Order: sequence, then C-alpha cells, then structure tokens
Amino acid sequence: MSQHSTQKIAIIGSGTIGLSFAALHLTKNANCHMSIYDTRPDLEDYIAATLPSYLPPESADALTARLTLSSSLQDAVSNATIIQEQGPEALAFKQQIWPQIEAFAPKDALFWTSTSGIPASQQGAQMQDQSRLMVVHPFNPPHIMPLLEIVPSPQTRPEAVERTVQYWRSLGRSPVVIQKECMGFVANRLAFALLREACSLVANGVISVSDLDEAVTASMGPRWAVAGPFKSYHAGGGEGGLASFMDKIGWTIGECWKASEADVEKAGVSVGGAWQEDVCRQADEAYGVVDTRERDEKTKRVLDALGRG
Amino acid sequence: MSQHSTQKIAIIGSGTIGLSFAALHLTKNANCHMSIYDTRPDLEDYIAATLPSYLPPESADALTARLTLSSSLQDAVSNATIIQEQGPEALAFKQQIWPQIEAFAPKDALFWTSTSGIPASQQGAQMQDQSRLMVVHPFNPPHIMPLLEIVPSPQTRPEAVERTVQYWRSLGRSPVVIQKECMGFVANRLAFALLREACSLVANGVISVSDLDEAVTASMGPRWAVAGPFKSYHAGGGEGGLASFMDKIGWTIGECWKASEADVEKAGVSVGGAWQEDVCRQADEAYGVVDTRERDEKTKRVLDALGRG
Repeated sequence: MSQHSTQKIAIIGSGTIGLSFAALHLTKNANCHMSIYDTRPDLEDYIAATLPSYLPPESADALTARLTLSSSLQDAVSNATIIQEQGPEALAFKQQIWPQIEAFAPKDALFWTSTSGIPASQQGAQMQDQSRLMVVHPFNPPHIMPLLEIVPSPQTRPEAVERTVQYWRSLGRSPVVIQKECMGFVANRLAFALLREACSLVANGVISVSDLDEAVTASMGPRWAVAGPFKSYHAGGGEGGLASFMDKIGWTIGECWKASEADVEKAGVSVGGAWQEDVCRQADEAYGVVDTRERDEKTKRVLDALGRG
Repeated sequence: MSQHSTQKIAIIGSGTIGLSFAALHLTKNANCHMSIYDTRPDLEDYIAATLPSYLPPESADALTARLTLSSSLQDAVSNATIIQEQGPEALAFKQQIWPQIEAFAPKDALFWTSTSGIPASQQGAQMQDQSRLMVVHPFNPPHIMPLLEIVPSPQTRPEAVERTVQYWRSLGRSPVVIQKECMGFVANRLAFALLREACSLVANGVISVSDLDEAVTASMGPRWAVAGPFKSYHAGGGEGGLASFMDKIGWTIGECWKASEADVEKAGVSVGGAWQEDVCRQADEAYGVVDTRERDEKTKRVLDALGRG
C-alpha cells in the first residue's frame, strides 16, 4: 500500500499498449502520478482524443488531471519510481534508450519493457547496471486482461522483481514470474501451440474456422477462465489427481499427440504455407471486422463474475 | 420446438456422464420424458442418492417425476425418440449393444454415443443400419459445459445429424459438427496440444505448474470464453484480419513453433516420460483434492455473464 500511494509512473511511448497501461495505472492506482513521453508533435491533441476511450467515462476528467505530457525524456523520468517502455519493437531502439533513461532516472526506479520478444538481457547491454530492468509483458489490452508476464534477465535483482510483483498485486492484477528468458515467454507459447493445432484441424478438413471457435468458447475457454489446464486435469483425476488422470487418459493423450504431429506434417502447417490462405479467408467470411469494444465489454463481465475485474 | 416438446430420452448407463446428461435434459427440456437403463441391482437407491446433486435444488422433485428407471433395455428404449449411450469405453460392449438397441427402438429414434474415442463407424459395425448413429461427445460435465461435439460416421445420414443439432440448439447448447472421424475429435486435440506445451515449459524450468495455471486463467481463458483463437487473432490483425496478423506476427509464431518442438524434444515430453513425476507432484502440492463443485459454480457464473448459462 505504501508503494501504491507514492508511485510516479513514466510511460515511454504512447501507442495502444502505452495508452492501455496508462489507463490501467490511473484507474487502479488512485494516488499515482503519471507522465507520458512521446516525440510526436501533436502529443497533447492525440492524448486528449484517444486516452479517454480507455478510461471509465464518469471519471475520465479526474483521472487525466494526474497526468503530464512530455517531449523531453529527462523531464518525463527524472522523478519517476517506475519507467515503463513500449517504444518500437527494435533492438537498436531499446539498446539506445535504456542508458539515457538510466542517466536521468532516480537510482531506485524500476525499469519495465513491454516487449513481446526482445529479452531484457539484450535490451540492457549498453547500460551501466541492468539489475532493475525486466520485461513486463501484458496480454492485450492490459487495461482489461489481468496477466503480466514478468521476465527478469540473469542480471535482474530479485528485490526488483519482488517490488514489481507487489506493485501489480496491489492493483489486483496477476503478475507471473517467468524463470528463464525464452522465445515467446509463456502465454504466447501456449496460445500459439493451440493455434497450430487449430490451423492443422481446419487445414485437414476436420472442422471450419467458425465451428472451431465455437467449440473453444463453449468448452476450454470458460473452463480455463476458472481453472488452468493443470488444475483442470488434476481435478479430472479425482483423488489421485494429475498422476491418476495421466494413468487413465495417458494412452489417449499420447495418441492425440502423435495424430497432431502427423496432421501438422500432412497439411504442412508452417507459417506462410499453402494452408494459410483458406484459413484466413474463412476468418474474413465469418467475422469481417471484429468489434473489440464488444469483446472487451464481455471480457470485463467474465472477469467481474470471477472477482478479477 | 415441436421436437423439444415430444422427446422421450433413454439414457443407457448411469455413471457420472449419464447422470449429468440426464440432469441436462430434465432441466433444459421441460417436456421430455426420460428412462435410465442400468443393470446395477441398487439402481433406484443409487439414482435417488446421486441424481439430485446434478439438479437445481428447488426443482429436483418435479424434474425426477418425469423419470423412470429400468433394468430392461427393451423397456427403456422401446418408446424412445433419442437413445444416448455412455456405457463402458470398450469396443466390444458398444458393438454388441447397438444391434440390441436397434432391434428394440422405434425406427426413427436417434442413436447417440458419448464416447471420447471409439468412432461411430466402428461401434455400429454389427448393426443393420448405421445411418442414425453418431458420436455426441460432451465437454465434462455436460450439465454445465455447453459444447457437444457431433461426430457422424460416413454412414450417418445428414438428416439425423441435422435433427441432433436442432435438438441441442433448442436446449440452448452449442453443438458443433466434426467433419471427419479423427483421433480425439477437436476439443481434446486442442486442449492436449496446449497441455503438451504446458508440460514442456514446466519440464524445462521456465515456469511452475501453479504459475502456468495462473497465467492461463488471467489471459487466454477469459479471452477464449468470449472469442475463439481464430476470431481473437483475426481481431488482432485489425482491418486486415487474420491475414494481416499472420503478416505482422508470423515470424514470431514460427519461431515459437520451432522453440516448442525443440523444447518438447529436449525434455522428452511424451506420455510416461521422466518429466511427468515432477509435474504431477507440483500439481498435488498446489491443489490437493480440487473442489469441483466450486469450479462448476464459478463456471456457471462465467457462462451466465455471457448469456450461455
């Protein structure tokens, strides 16, 4: 709570992720002050036009009163306790901005990058001291979805990770610490593994794109909103838990894994393969342009029903 | 609606799946009559003791008034319009019971099997006419989860599939037709593909069992309760849809797929491998014995929030 009341947060980069994070801090952390740094010349007009749509309408004015905008990196970070970067997804950009931030920021400020793929150990290669830099990767959009993947580098101090976890917990979010820097972190690795199987099943003529989506929203979606895959299968094993589940269902799981490998091979499901065109066409025909506002509204209702809103 | 009002449903086998389906029909189909067939000698006491826990407490008495119990297969099915089988998961059992059911049942009754793995084409091999037999595979427990995977055999008539789909839609459920008999059907294939990746990430020391579950319930669980994977990534591509998403993120997806294959290989993630013991131990330590009643209650809240309860 003491952290909660004293944070000064600098948001570096005002794209959709930056704005979503800004809205999250402002909405959930009643005492934070915030600066947004961006070099775009129309920053003030742009923020006035876009940020309110991420905020609860009734409190948008009060929340934005705690916000300052800056085109000076030094001004934005010089008093910050947390600096959260979501600039271009390019190693060169990250490697040159962190030493600048390090030079301007207070000595105990936390450094977070929203990257989905460039590890902190690479981003901080030019810094004097990488020990407070880590990845804080959201599941988009972060003002709706609770997950934050915290990925320290081997140089990140445990104390900095702990402060980061505590901050997000104090906001009611779900920080999860990833123990090793690895390709895609965890959420995307899991989701892309299922996506590959989904593409393979469609490419092999087992099911249509829209029926596959219907199957997921009617089964593992709501199940995994309540209990993750391990807990679900642990429950499926009764008193013997996951070990018992693997004893009973293991043969079927093994056959499914073999069939998956064979089917991925058969349909050639690698990125850019011939299968891709038909899958994308089916998605276009089924969905046109998706109304993400309706999706986010429904997601809030789900999370509220679980006390995680 | 006319179907809805006239169904006589025979449930073959009174295990947990049979009871859950019985409760689903009784609760959602106000005019159905039901018989439950089982050879267990204590059938009446057993049903009186177990079925009410699947039913809304306030209406359990009224609902069970529409139920008859039978230890005679002929009595149970001779007037039925739908015969739903969830006996032992053994080919020999299935192959011998369907010809008997066929001999006793009305000529236009639908034949459904709840199997998770034995295709209708094999189950019906001894029947005179396999054209109204199909798999109707639930996502457990069916009185809570909306999905029904409808898997016809090549011999199943489209008209029988259509009547099946209409029946489930009239009960507000989510029937999805699988176009080919295939190992695991669709829901398990998708869930097991994600499970394999989950096991691999834990086995490779990237994350713990409980943190992985937390990551899923805070991200793709609620997301996929609202929109399936294709619709989600189609939305992620903006106006260009899934094709645009694959253009922008395809490289990362491809690298994740490669990393997945390498990591599965590295940790030897096949069923029964050395990795399994530690994963099962972590699940035991994190969860003990899971309270499925609480899980089902939360799942109902999620589905209610989405208008799918």
